[in-house]
Amino acid sequence: MQQAFIKIALDNWYTQISRASKLIDSLTDEQLAQETAPGRNTGTYLLGHLVAVHDSMIPLLNVGSKMYPQLEEPFIKQPDKSELEKPSIQQLRSYWTEMNNALTLSFNLMNMDEWFQKHTAVSEEDFAVNPSRNKLNVLLTRTNHLAYHLGQLVYLKQG
Amino acid sequence: MQQAFIKIALDNWYTQISRASKLIDSLTDEQLAQETAPGRNTGTYLLGHLVAVHDSMIPLLNVGSKMYPQLEEPFIKQPDKSELEKPSIQQLRSYWTEMNNALTLSFNLMNMDEWFQKHTAVSEEDFAVNPSRNKLNVLLTRTNHLAYHLGQLVYLKQG
Repeated sequence: MQQAFIKIALDNWYTQISRASKLIDSLTDEQLAQETAPGRNTGTYLLGHLVAVHDSMIPLLNVGSKMYPQLEEPFIKQPDKSELEKPSIQQLRSYWTEMNNALTLSFNLMNMDEWFQKHTAVSEEDFAVNPSRNKLNVLLTRTNHLAYHLGQLVYLKQG
Repeated sequence: MQQAFIKIALDNWYTQISRASKLIDSLTDEQLAQETAPGRNTGTYLLGHLVAVHDSMIPLLNVGSKMYPQLEEPFIKQPDKSELEKPSIQQLRSYWTEMNNALTLSFNLMNMDEWFQKHTAVSEEDFAVNPSRNKLNVLLTRTNHLAYHLGQLVYLKQG
């Protein structure tokens, strides 16, 4: 039963990743550089934002260190159109793929019990009070976060 | 453990519902009637679409019959701006609230084992092959679906 719900949660993650990858691959660099709606985040920013947020799952799940810590400032802390230096779209596309592969590897190495352990941003005391603050919860909230921005990225496609 | 997972999945659902409700309540009828981006679905259509999709969870989870079957045609089968007669924005707002309350009641009445039973759109044979096609999976996929459209509805807010 326990195994069944980890599988469902992971399947839902992979479905969103696969939809996002398919969309990103279908967009040209020029399309990706556009705003998703007038005055809103560009596709480039959202791609960098998703890589940076997924990267932060690695330390949260306690499976290693961030691969691209340099993305946190321009794609999480700062809004779009900041003056900060940013990677090229080509680099971001390759980070996206490498990030997904790294997370898949980590997920495959995690055993069932690990998903129910606390994530690293919650203290032992807080976890004792609220055992829902586990690694599985990180997976579910990040899947929703991805779906949220996927709904915006899809507006880059020609209507 | 099993209980922990259901709680996490439900918490994630309620978080998305709460964010969506807060956003919808903050928008005027005029804002909701706007397109979320040029040439894209209006807020009104997305609101009707979400109510219709959530309504279809009731028979899928086998907890009753649809409350608003009349919404399926204009908000699922047909695209936005169809000539079909639609409820007013005020009606849709009230359907949204009633829909959420009805689902909360149903979720509260479901026991743990029920979430791992097959949903009604899958046959016994297919469920035997893929036991992930259960009611919990319906909850997770619909949570992602809500997050996806929430990412679009948020564009109705003044930037």
